[in-house]
Amino acid sequence: MNNNTWKRLPMADCVRDLVATARGDRKASLVILNVRLVNVLSGEIVPEMSIAVQGPRIAYVGKDVSHTIGEGTVVIDAGGKYAAPGLLDGHCHIESTQLTATEFARAVLPLGTTGGFFDAHEISNVLGLPGLRFMLEEARTTPLAAYMQVASCVPSTHPGLETTGAYIGPEEVAEALSWGPDMIGLGEVMNFPGVVYGDDKMIGEIEATLRAGKYADGHFTWSSGDWRLPVYAASGIDGDHECVSAEDVIERVRLGMYAKMRQGSAWHDVAATIKAHTEGGLDTRRMILVTDDRSSESLMNEGHMNFVVRHAIAQGVKPVTAFQMATINTAERFGVARDIGAIAPGLCADIILLDGNLADVNVTMTIAAGQVVAEEGRMTAEWEPYAIPAEAYGTVKLGRPIEERDLVIAAPQTGGTVEVRAIGVVENHVETKETWVNVPVEDSALRVTPESGLCKMAVFERHGQGGGHALGIVAGIGFEEPAAIAMTVAHDSHNVTVIGNDDRLMAQAGNRVAEMQGGVVMLTRTGRTEFPLPVGGLMSDQPFETVASQSEAVSQALIQSGCLLNNAFMTLSLLALVVIPELRLSDKGLVRISADGIEIVPLFRS
Amino acid sequence: MNNNTWKRLPMADCVRDLVATARGDRKASLVILNVRLVNVLSGEIVPEMSIAVQGPRIAYVGKDVSHTIGEGTVVIDAGGKYAAPGLLDGHCHIESTQLTATEFARAVLPLGTTGGFFDAHEISNVLGLPGLRFMLEEARTTPLAAYMQVASCVPSTHPGLETTGAYIGPEEVAEALSWGPDMIGLGEVMNFPGVVYGDDKMIGEIEATLRAGKYADGHFTWSSGDWRLPVYAASGIDGDHECVSAEDVIERVRLGMYAKMRQGSAWHDVAATIKAHTEGGLDTRRMILVTDDRSSESLMNEGHMNFVVRHAIAQGVKPVTAFQMATINTAERFGVARDIGAIAPGLCADIILLDGNLADVNVTMTIAAGQVVAEEGRMTAEWEPYAIPAEAYGTVKLGRPIEERDLVIAAPQTGGTVEVRAIGVVENHVETKETWVNVPVEDSALRVTPESGLCKMAVFERHGQGGGHALGIVAGIGFEEPAAIAMTVAHDSHNVTVIGNDDRLMAQAGNRVAEMQGGVVMLTRTGRTEFPLPVGGLMSDQPFETVASQSEAVSQALIQSGCLLNNAFMTLSLLALVVIPELRLSDKGLVRISADGIEIVPLFRS
Repeated sequence: MNNNTWKRLPMADCVRDLVATARGDRKASLVILNVRLVNVLSGEIVPEMSIAVQGPRIAYVGKDVSHTIGEGTVVIDAGGKYAAPGLLDGHCHIESTQLTATEFARAVLPLGTTGGFFDAHEISNVLGLPGLRFMLEEARTTPLAAYMQVASCVPSTHPGLETTGAYIGPEEVAEALSWGPDMIGLGEVMNFPGVVYGDDKMIGEIEATLRAGKYADGHFTWSSGDWRLPVYAASGIDGDHECVSAEDVIERVRLGMYAKMRQGSAWHDVAATIKAHTEGGLDTRRMILVTDDRSSESLMNEGHMNFVVRHAIAQGVKPVTAFQMATINTAERFGVARDIGAIAPGLCADIILLDGNLADVNVTMTIAAGQVVAEEGRMTAEWEPYAIPAEAYGTVKLGRPIEERDLVIAAPQTGGTVEVRAIGVVENHVETKETWVNVPVEDSALRVTPESGLCKMAVFERHGQGGGHALGIVAGIGFEEPAAIAMTVAHDSHNVTVIGNDDRLMAQAGNRVAEMQGGVVMLTRTGRTEFPLPVGGLMSDQPFETVASQSEAVSQALIQSGCLLNNAFMTLSLLALVVIPELRLSDKGLVRISADGIEIVPLFRS
Repeated sequence: MNNNTWKRLPMADCVRDLVATARGDRKASLVILNVRLVNVLSGEIVPEMSIAVQGPRIAYVGKDVSHTIGEGTVVIDAGGKYAAPGLLDGHCHIESTQLTATEFARAVLPLGTTGGFFDAHEISNVLGLPGLRFMLEEARTTPLAAYMQVASCVPSTHPGLETTGAYIGPEEVAEALSWGPDMIGLGEVMNFPGVVYGDDKMIGEIEATLRAGKYADGHFTWSSGDWRLPVYAASGIDGDHECVSAEDVIERVRLGMYAKMRQGSAWHDVAATIKAHTEGGLDTRRMILVTDDRSSESLMNEGHMNFVVRHAIAQGVKPVTAFQMATINTAERFGVARDIGAIAPGLCADIILLDGNLADVNVTMTIAAGQVVAEEGRMTAEWEPYAIPAEAYGTVKLGRPIEERDLVIAAPQTGGTVEVRAIGVVENHVETKETWVNVPVEDSALRVTPESGLCKMAVFERHGQGGGHALGIVAGIGFEEPAAIAMTVAHDSHNVTVIGNDDRLMAQAGNRVAEMQGGVVMLTRTGRTEFPLPVGGLMSDQPFETVASQSEAVSQALIQSGCLLNNAFMTLSLLALVVIPELRLSDKGLVRISADGIEIVPLFRS
């Protein structure tokens, strides 16, 4: 474990200091006077409270903390501002921000997020356990209460459906979960058919998790009412963020799962799912707000959990209830409510101050592990930067350069038009639609032009395992000119994925991404936009502000070419994700995900 | 660990079987069709549900479980009855029922209690860890989900204030908590001034508990508004049943504690404390219903947790909310909500069926660990009886027989009347009142007669540690004739305690109790009632029905002599408990408990 400035000591090591501070025999390290306390334990807003802190934890909460103030005590007069527990993200892939854990912390702490449950699933698909390990170690150097999950699905399905860079099975899960109490459990088990039908690897990973006394998270996307959700629940998986409707939430909570309601950059599920409470009256204790995947741009422009809580309140949830959904509920789900998730004696001093109307979630100060780390939207704390290990670089290993002819899609006829099974993009949702489109054929190959409104999509294996590729058609991108975008961020195997309507631009973009050792390249006849992501081909090693501006440049380039999808890049980066319905493309071919299972399907009607 | 018919296997060992059963490939061991499910997770009553069970755990919950039914499946058609999770007692001393763990299980299972969190505090004060160990091992042989706590306060305060039979400190706590996952934590830390003022033994025990990842329960009796409750909370103690008002509950929940609302035989706190919710609107997730101490008679005549839940509902709590307070809230408090406390796939099949109106809590069937154990108020299951070890017997070791002159209270004057500090009994409450009474003096000794309405009280050390004794005066017993009651049940040190208004009867009763090696003896000029409790001087080794009838006989004898206090025996057995305000008598003298601390005080004004 790296040295940690923030020293989140176990409670057992703090008992004597906290009791001595609480009774006034030791003086507090920090005191916050006169807050309106958002008490997520009692479900109240309690006025005129003060808080005394000793080191990383809270020593006293009450009307009067004057007996804890000494010469060395930092005293903050909150002047009646709200104080709430620091916000927790109950399901988040840091890699989706394209930020390192350090820069993620710098981005979200000023927004009021002080902890999270992170599935380093993307880096694990590229680098395996060593990838998880360095992200864990980096996260430990930040002020965040960062809990990591070991990815369950590496690969997300099986080698016949996609090629990934690593393998994680039950033994690897057991090993990773032995690394410390901040290894909290098993990441989303996306191979839900595998669980339901008794796949040995998936069941073995869950067993290893439960045996370690840890928590297994779910990912079940068959639609509400499916008789197999209780089968999935019988495995011991007891949290799931794949809720897209109120019914999904109700079913999961009834079955003993925590239902995580997601507001990612490109999937907006809260407005629908929160109705389980606002219309259905469901007990909210097992309802949790999460982000899953948010881009650096979204962090910059909208926010992180502060945005999600504000959005939930705007749907008609009582403010203190919405705060519960991002604090104590989350902590309870992962068995760490004695450390984080509320403001009470003994808990970590992760506290945010909020100004004005509580429903606006206007964070003006963030205290993490007992120290002020951000004020008025800016980081005030600094710490020793983490050195990313060399093996996280140089991970893009194409078999050979991409050629234009690699992008030719042979048709079963020489001319005319042919019906093609296409991936239909759905804006703001993680699902895609399988849609049949008519495509002209020229010289026995599909002819895809800007005018058609269609794009080709190609996925090239990039983990040095043969360099195969597959091709498909995508509807709904919206390019109005010859354009191509290539990326190494392509969930979950993160092979080189190219989408475009011009074979030459597609080949160029793909090769440039490989040359950069990861990132995003957007090309038109006249324009070139590059966003380098050298860390595993997934993350930048630049500061948050730089990353957000590079990400924004990609978004602008997409818009200028006619792709007007909200958070287009994130949507496109999911088109290879073969565990969410309905149709996806991997390096092995077109993959259909339905209630019958996951299978490779042909491009043309047979 | 003893062999266990009920085999509450860890979830990790059940995953494969449960998933196979849920999908229909293995057939369920038990199926319950057509219930109205009391879903404490979602806060709903869900009609037309069915439940499939495999071994000790639930495999499937849904509208249709027909795919899980095979030839060997036991099928119960509930015909629309309510099904609720088995009730849990969140704080209970089994010894207070005077029953062994086996007979306690036989008493409460038909009433719908399927689990509990037991502080074997009484036997530990007599026998130390070996006493706890045998109760743990016995509890493991029952169908109950029985979790045990290691007693924190042996002695309850310190040897200067009382003499007890054993010593438990931080090392003993650590040892006991290593015995298994059913050793759930530290029992109520009654020496709350010790915690607040940094007593090394108390803080050490809490540290050992937290280090083991377990839970420390509280017992804080300074009145609401005391500035030191947050100090106590800063120690990591996060549950407390010493709530006697709504304010007590609100304060505890706000500070991160679970507030346990008690309905014992002789302390009726629910009507007052539940107002934190019914009038104060407090979030109920950290409010728990408990019994603390209930007599075998109360179990027989009123019930156990079924009675408490019914009583809570009668105060205006929504039925499903009251059930939460005795199921999921309790399980969450102790970190075992993945095993017990709800009806959902993966959890233990602890299920009760209820007939008629849900608010009546009319339990007609109890299923524990997947097996039907009781129907229509009667046990249907049997199991191998546990052999109580020989060292649990023969524990009453008086220094010498009690003589009449041991009961003489010398006055500071030869005649007239003198003002005496008396213990004032408060019916249905655990507190006593310090009250000053005028007592006639004859031959330089206090003269206590039936006409005075007062009694003498004597406590004789009985653990073979010198045989000292102390004397005091009690007001409010009500004996109208010469009478004496002697008992070895006298919390928490369980010395031989005699209360009466006739020195000869008092000496006789005390000696008879010693001769019996424990129990209760009630004597008048014409009557004798005996209730033998040979197991540690605390518990009977007879069946529940016999014990209840013997206990009833003691109650009747008390009433016939004019002591009309509700649950008089239990109230009397608490008069030596030196950790609850205001005035008590131990073998060391009169003890006053106030906001200033705990101290020996003189009988007469100085």
